[in-house]
Amino acid sequence: MVMQIIRSIPDMQKTMLALRAQPDCRIGFVPTMGCLHEGHLSLIRQVRRLGCLPVVSLFVNPIQFGPREDFSRYPRPFDHDCRLCEQEGAAYLFAPSAEEMYPSGASVFVEETKLSGGLCGAARPGHFRGVTTVVTKLFQIVQPHVAAFGRKDAQQARIIAHLTACLNMPVEIEICPIVREPDGLAMSSRNRYLTPVERAQSVGLVEALREAAGLYRSGETGAAALIRAMEERLRQQGLLIPEYVAVVDYASLQPVETVGPSTLCALAVKVGSTRLIDNLLINAAGETVL
Amino acid sequence: MVMQIIRSIPDMQKTMLALRAQPDCRIGFVPTMGCLHEGHLSLIRQVRRLGCLPVVSLFVNPIQFGPREDFSRYPRPFDHDCRLCEQEGAAYLFAPSAEEMYPSGASVFVEETKLSGGLCGAARPGHFRGVTTVVTKLFQIVQPHVAAFGRKDAQQARIIAHLTACLNMPVEIEICPIVREPDGLAMSSRNRYLTPVERAQSVGLVEALREAAGLYRSGETGAAALIRAMEERLRQQGLLIPEYVAVVDYASLQPVETVGPSTLCALAVKVGSTRLIDNLLINAAGETVL
Repeated sequence: MVMQIIRSIPDMQKTMLALRAQPDCRIGFVPTMGCLHEGHLSLIRQVRRLGCLPVVSLFVNPIQFGPREDFSRYPRPFDHDCRLCEQEGAAYLFAPSAEEMYPSGASVFVEETKLSGGLCGAARPGHFRGVTTVVTKLFQIVQPHVAAFGRKDAQQARIIAHLTACLNMPVEIEICPIVREPDGLAMSSRNRYLTPVERAQSVGLVEALREAAGLYRSGETGAAALIRAMEERLRQQGLLIPEYVAVVDYASLQPVETVGPSTLCALAVKVGSTRLIDNLLINAAGETVL
Repeated sequence: MVMQIIRSIPDMQKTMLALRAQPDCRIGFVPTMGCLHEGHLSLIRQVRRLGCLPVVSLFVNPIQFGPREDFSRYPRPFDHDCRLCEQEGAAYLFAPSAEEMYPSGASVFVEETKLSGGLCGAARPGHFRGVTTVVTKLFQIVQPHVAAFGRKDAQQARIIAHLTACLNMPVEIEICPIVREPDGLAMSSRNRYLTPVERAQSVGLVEALREAAGLYRSGETGAAALIRAMEERLRQQGLLIPEYVAVVDYASLQPVETVGPSTLCALAVKVGSTRLIDNLLINAAGETVL
């Protein structure tokens, strides 16, 4: 089947509503900002594995970027992204313009008020409001049964799961594992901003998380001790400037003192002008999942 | 067909999604806070006229009431409302509890930022955020093709039409005429709060709007002159305390200086502890519509 590229909201919505009316069709949606890497492709594979028809969106969402962030330089290799989607078997690619998504006069925003304040939300005011607004719009347009998000953006994934529950959207949220480079660096479209020296030092994020995982597995359950160890490991790379190093409950995203099942260790650093995040989940079974 | 009453969100959503998958079924939704009167019934008739299966919700939405407003005393004549819905041919009645709609931990709100600040929004901070949030939730649960709202709440109707456009909800918004008592008072669930003396004086709202309509038809196009005339007419009833008397553009809800097609004259008054609103639309053809 040839992948269909759709740029207009009414065309996309009409096509998706017609699909949704077919008895056995389940729509599996992978919203992206493009510049696709193996992490995104794993999401497409996951919705296929769930028996869904894969639908991908490519949209660099202006309202989730702050005024000093990288919206204008965010990479947009459209043809390359199309090829990757088609290779992975995507049936539809939705690629609207910013004017199509936010015509002049647009004035409705969707806001999450409890999970959005800390971690990345503290350093990026308005970021998650932009995310929850665009995801709500995309869900209305694409009408998915399932939507897949990567756990690399753990706070985003939790907020979106909570968004769909709070607004009663009939969409299952599938949170998928982090995909990593051979040396452990979490895949990110922003990794391509890194100079060779910055790239080499960036492995410090996952190494800090590995330290925390090792400490926990050896019996340490004090959040303060894990935070200290992660900060120390980050400090060994001169170019990594920590924005936050946090140990939180995976459901509430509130800081915890004692580490255990469903604890998330999350990091954000600046490397030169590039912002990188990563996290370690201690899952419900108490296993450390990088 | 016997009307089905559903109280659980998952049951309602499942039922509505199954209906929505039927090829020729169009869902016509009438969201209400109950205490139904002829105004609400006209909305049910209108969605039937459009060939839709009528679905009504009864839910007194706590988050659209301010702390000093009438949430707790708002009338809830449930059995009477059920009978009226059934008589009008409603197929489904959705009547969730407040705990069902807002479980503890609910933290997502939908906010309109341009049309919501003036008129009723100025006196009722947070009111329209409550309205846009509950309507978004209800639309996700009921999955309507069409939803009907009365023009008595003109600002609400405009905000909801804009909400669905901004968030790309696949719902047509049908704004229906005001239904009035024989003496012209706009029907409202809150009219039953009025003492006989207050009830008699409340006709001043529509009479003020009739003054404005008469002035416009006789050639007056100055908004200030219409406002003066409406205020004067209200003043003749000693018990009507104006909250606002406004002449605005019907699309933007911004004040205009010159009255013409698509102008809205809108009033809010306090009568004792009861708040009443009413409006006059000068439609696109330049006709005055009470």
